[in-house]
Amino acid sequence: MQLRFYPYVLKLAHEFAVAAGSRSVTPGVQVEIEYEGVTGYGEASMPPYLGESIESVVSFLQQLDLNRFSDPFCMEDILHYVDDVAVGNAAAKASVDIALHDLTGKLMGLPWHKIWGLDAASAPCTTYTIGMGTPEVVKEKVLEVEGRFRVLKVKLGSDDDRALVRSVRAVTSLPLTVDVNQGWRDRQKALDDIAWLAEQGVMMVEQPLPKDRLDDLAWLTERSPLPIFADESVQRLADVRRLEGVVSGINIKLMKCTGMREAWKMVNLARALGLKVMLGCMTETSCAVSAAAQLSPMADYADLDGNLLISNDPFRGMQVKDGKIVLASAPGIGIMKV
Amino acid sequence: MQLRFYPYVLKLAHEFAVAAGSRSVTPGVQVEIEYEGVTGYGEASMPPYLGESIESVVSFLQQLDLNRFSDPFCMEDILHYVDDVAVGNAAAKASVDIALHDLTGKLMGLPWHKIWGLDAASAPCTTYTIGMGTPEVVKEKVLEVEGRFRVLKVKLGSDDDRALVRSVRAVTSLPLTVDVNQGWRDRQKALDDIAWLAEQGVMMVEQPLPKDRLDDLAWLTERSPLPIFADESVQRLADVRRLEGVVSGINIKLMKCTGMREAWKMVNLARALGLKVMLGCMTETSCAVSAAAQLSPMADYADLDGNLLISNDPFRGMQVKDGKIVLASAPGIGIMKV
Repeated sequence: MQLRFYPYVLKLAHEFAVAAGSRSVTPGVQVEIEYEGVTGYGEASMPPYLGESIESVVSFLQQLDLNRFSDPFCMEDILHYVDDVAVGNAAAKASVDIALHDLTGKLMGLPWHKIWGLDAASAPCTTYTIGMGTPEVVKEKVLEVEGRFRVLKVKLGSDDDRALVRSVRAVTSLPLTVDVNQGWRDRQKALDDIAWLAEQGVMMVEQPLPKDRLDDLAWLTERSPLPIFADESVQRLADVRRLEGVVSGINIKLMKCTGMREAWKMVNLARALGLKVMLGCMTETSCAVSAAAQLSPMADYADLDGNLLISNDPFRGMQVKDGKIVLASAPGIGIMKV
Repeated sequence: MQLRFYPYVLKLAHEFAVAAGSRSVTPGVQVEIEYEGVTGYGEASMPPYLGESIESVVSFLQQLDLNRFSDPFCMEDILHYVDDVAVGNAAAKASVDIALHDLTGKLMGLPWHKIWGLDAASAPCTTYTIGMGTPEVVKEKVLEVEGRFRVLKVKLGSDDDRALVRSVRAVTSLPLTVDVNQGWRDRQKALDDIAWLAEQGVMMVEQPLPKDRLDDLAWLTERSPLPIFADESVQRLADVRRLEGVVSGINIKLMKCTGMREAWKMVNLARALGLKVMLGCMTETSCAVSAAAQLSPMADYADLDGNLLISNDPFRGMQVKDGKIVLASAPGIGIMKV
């Protein structure tokens, strides 16, 4: 197996503002694994506030010697080896996992959702993320996309979240989800805000409180009229177990959990523990977004809009039609170079 | 998809005596699913004391209408449909699951351990089961097989279990596991017996107490010098969760859990909960045994000797070489008709 990788900076079509800051590019690394003339594509996306970077990903990938494995199908062993190279580096690890899944799926001639026994027609709708901004900017963003999606996701954790939601509601009656990104502090106020949000037609609340405040998240989930999903509180498979009874569901992202194989295990563990499942993404190309989409027929919610936010997508894969996720029939992770 | 099935009674090479009785045949049903010229093979095995029968399996299979599915790869949906037809009927459901995995694996051109990303070389040893009998008969059974296996499994729950173990030890120094099949009643005596067994070179104890006595099993596991595995206490995926902290590991059998797909989910859930995994079987042909063997690279223990006990095996699949499980490279579940 031959591993190749190169930096690829994602250019955002619009400035992206969240609770943590604002930016117009996202660093990324594109990965290829070639084996017997077939190439699998993978990707790492590294939002700066999360700790990885082009330097850290390239440095990680340079340490890998995939030639100690003669068979790309031995993913259990290969990915254990990759995981053991260093702690952290989840996006770097995910890039290898995604490329291996694309490669093996191509060698099998099937897309991974099919290999996993899933029906593409069961893929859910995806939300589209409305980032923070002034009321005018927010209304504009909503009007830009309103006809193309069935649910919008609104980023909260601003100085005036109710104003943000009112702005959105001024121009659309679509169902909404909200993502607080740990932005609220007081659990009683959070509960009051959630009650108000429920009256505004919001269906679900993501990470209302800081990630380590599990007792408060459990308190909130017990009383909340809306399901509460964990995002920052759950990174990898080992984090899922302790969220049972703490939240209603978990947001699984390939860049957090090291890739498709671990994501699949997390989906199955979550369901066995009675947790709902959401699939999310960072700002990514169609490579990683389509990879995540392969699991989407198993998900209750999906926020797979990461490729829609960029202007230099080198691939075409998962589509959104009338708000619904449409998986390509191409093998592997279901993408083609454009 | 075309489903065919016919009774197939397994003839035991030797009388098989366990805590519950003694018999010389095991009822079974062989299943075939044909799709676009390719046939997948499956099997139900129905030890009489477990509640299913040729009548119940045939009656179940006759209710299935697989023509409502155009694609055998949609296993999540197909197996949900099969599961919803009636409660119980685990072996009948497993027969369909196994045939679907054989079929789809053949359509993909790969064996399922490879599709699951596992390395065949990681498959464990299998134990060989020494059934109950007089000291002379037990010694004979051990001597018959001693050179071919690295670990023997001794059935306990008799009137004099220590005599059974002494008989085995009189003729071999191989490591042993024991399967009590719920045969012990007193937890303190069980703990004393386990301490004695540990001195006799026994490595693991299966189902020492009745299946519903979870508190006593937990008490025992906490104090036992040997790992305690649950067999009758765990049937399906929904049973795994409550065994966390109760036993050291679980014995997964396709005929208990409705097949390979659920078994794979159980393996992953068990590991996420810190439970060890064993793969077992009933008296089965190489069809179902090889199907279970596809998961074995993920297992800590395996007792996949079910086909070695019969004289009319219509298939050839998983082999045992020097005590180790050797998976065939054939696609699907890795079997060929003989």
